[in-house]
Amino acid sequence: MLGEIIATGTELITGRVADFNARYAARRLHEAGLEVQCITMLGDRAPLFQEVLRLGISRSRFLIITGGLGPTEDDITAAAAAETLGLKLLRDEALLARIKKCLEERQIPWEERYARLALIPQGAMVLDPGGAACGFSLKHNDTRLYFLPGVPREMQLLFDHYVLPSLVGWCGAGACLVQRTLRLFGISETQIQEVISRLAEFQQGVTVGLYPNFPENHLSITLRGKDRPAMEENMARLVAALAQEVGDTLLGPAETPLEDLVGQLLRAKGLSLAVAESCTGGLIGHRLTNIAGSSDYFLGGVISYSNEAKMDLLRVPPETLARRGAVSAETAVAMARGVRAVFRADVGLSVTGIAGPTGGSPEKPVGTVYIGLATPQTVEWFHYLFHGGREEIKVLSAQMALDRLRRVLK
Amino acid sequence: MLGEIIATGTELITGRVADFNARYAARRLHEAGLEVQCITMLGDRAPLFQEVLRLGISRSRFLIITGGLGPTEDDITAAAAAETLGLKLLRDEALLARIKKCLEERQIPWEERYARLALIPQGAMVLDPGGAACGFSLKHNDTRLYFLPGVPREMQLLFDHYVLPSLVGWCGAGACLVQRTLRLFGISETQIQEVISRLAEFQQGVTVGLYPNFPENHLSITLRGKDRPAMEENMARLVAALAQEVGDTLLGPAETPLEDLVGQLLRAKGLSLAVAESCTGGLIGHRLTNIAGSSDYFLGGVISYSNEAKMDLLRVPPETLARRGAVSAETAVAMARGVRAVFRADVGLSVTGIAGPTGGSPEKPVGTVYIGLATPQTVEWFHYLFHGGREEIKVLSAQMALDRLRRVLK
Repeated sequence: MLGEIIATGTELITGRVADFNARYAARRLHEAGLEVQCITMLGDRAPLFQEVLRLGISRSRFLIITGGLGPTEDDITAAAAAETLGLKLLRDEALLARIKKCLEERQIPWEERYARLALIPQGAMVLDPGGAACGFSLKHNDTRLYFLPGVPREMQLLFDHYVLPSLVGWCGAGACLVQRTLRLFGISETQIQEVISRLAEFQQGVTVGLYPNFPENHLSITLRGKDRPAMEENMARLVAALAQEVGDTLLGPAETPLEDLVGQLLRAKGLSLAVAESCTGGLIGHRLTNIAGSSDYFLGGVISYSNEAKMDLLRVPPETLARRGAVSAETAVAMARGVRAVFRADVGLSVTGIAGPTGGSPEKPVGTVYIGLATPQTVEWFHYLFHGGREEIKVLSAQMALDRLRRVLK
Repeated sequence: MLGEIIATGTELITGRVADFNARYAARRLHEAGLEVQCITMLGDRAPLFQEVLRLGISRSRFLIITGGLGPTEDDITAAAAAETLGLKLLRDEALLARIKKCLEERQIPWEERYARLALIPQGAMVLDPGGAACGFSLKHNDTRLYFLPGVPREMQLLFDHYVLPSLVGWCGAGACLVQRTLRLFGISETQIQEVISRLAEFQQGVTVGLYPNFPENHLSITLRGKDRPAMEENMARLVAALAQEVGDTLLGPAETPLEDLVGQLLRAKGLSLAVAESCTGGLIGHRLTNIAGSSDYFLGGVISYSNEAKMDLLRVPPETLARRGAVSAETAVAMARGVRAVFRADVGLSVTGIAGPTGGSPEKPVGTVYIGLATPQTVEWFHYLFHGGREEIKVLSAQMALDRLRRVLK
């Protein structure tokens, strides 16, 4: 059963903003096992929109249409669709009352143009999330049409709450979905695919989607069926089977970024953290402090870009720098120990490396990175050679440092 | 003269990757004054591709088609297009020789499937950038068709070198383009639009495009004509007139990020910099160190997330913290002075603030931010109240701190 997506908005065909809605819908539909055969983006001219709509109805069983439902003159979707489908455009009085109430609550004065928001094609069902922008759905012959607002947040809400369950239920005669998206790091797309193809649990009735998300890979698993409790159980089995195979490269659910996982582990163990960053230049601190409440466990850090900073602020012995160099296991260890002592933290994490494009040598090429990790019990170091441009090496170094910390804390 | 874009690739209609090519082409065409009426994305099935192609030819004067030119079975573009247009698919011997040479140079062993890369419709002109993937162009009745590879880097190269000049020359009977994209910060989209609409210089023959790029706005200015030297002069006049109006909010060309501008100013003046970051958590250091060669002027910094770090590492007097609080002008000034002294830097830059979502109070709500700036001559502080989520407040704080530094250095 094929469908398609029509995204309207002049900002899309002038390249002013990147498309969010079509990609979101395409991805969610694909995860649910529903196939989108094409995506069309166009401006706000009724004739072309109507041509695309007619064509879509002729070749697809479902259409998702986004944008053009607002109160201004160039919001043509509802009227143009009604005309194409041979339906009257009617004012939905219940919807109008709801809009008026909503404006009142937000202290926005009434204007006549808002009345346009309540005009929908005859027979359409209003998709009303309560308090946010509405959409509507229609059946035309054998095709289902879903009209959604163009603001990504509003579109997403309606898509997840109405469109996807409705389509899944329709196609599967009452089926529902159970989905999980997982975050993996340190394992390639090919390796993940190999694991999946090997696992018997994944062979039947499971849809998987693999999304590169540098430097991580995200894996979505979707089950479709009617017995939700049994499906939830099955999902738990699937995730457990996968975890068995991919081990520590499985970070957890996609909702929780690595810096949040690390924070949760630190909080659970009552440990504080300080970081010493050389080639990452502050990126690790930036990521850790993106998490609300991180001040409970993150004390701070030193960005020791110069050798003087490594000696003065982190107490790295000048002999170590002279003999081993700023990018060495010994310096990484001294930085981790130093920052732990200076901040009186439980854990000290350090990174020193060559992000490039210059500064490399035959023994220490660009991409050489050392990570140091000092805890009350242990001191460890790790050595990597990363490939990529300057920013990629920084991103990989910060990610690897946080991941080493996660593995030690587990 | 209307055109359209057809982007092929299963990864697009499953939402696996975000579209780059269509948006890039749409934006560049819009900037050049050429209008795209729709963008279609579809997979690798020949019948639908051919239907879209036929429709495109019937309603558009130019078509940009991306993807499906590779050596694998599902690369159907050339063959499907030839069939639709009633053309033979021929082997281009010169192109084949070039491909063989290219593979040899990269030490990739020859495989028979690479021969597919040299199959193009009869009468097509090969677009060969030398050393990278090729495309081809065709005329069909009154419509021009450009077939480009799907890899964004390769597509972009061919688009800029062949497609855009060819289309601009064709439409304008030999015209060429002069373009500039500028970076602005501290001025809203509406304000920029007002300035543009007021300036007489911008009233005729100038295409402007405004692209929000949080926290900046980017403005592209395009001139089309035949006398390139005169157009370059006119562009200089336009930019000067704009600069006069928008003043210091004009950062410079889009190619140069703010952290690079700041670095260039520091380098030119022979000054070194150290940063003390509280609510930005390392983001300023991260941005500064994204610039290759930043170690010439950036000595490092302290991420002083805890009060202890502010006292121990930055020498902020305990009384200041006790009396004025960690988020205050006095603390910002002490942090800037402290980090300047500790790193023996010429300039010390500090940020302290409340990124939220908690930690605010009636006197110091979430978004309250103080910036401190200590130079050999002066000590200044700045106070802001930013709105947004935690990450937005961090981004705005870092941007504002770097911008204050830029203004002081200028």
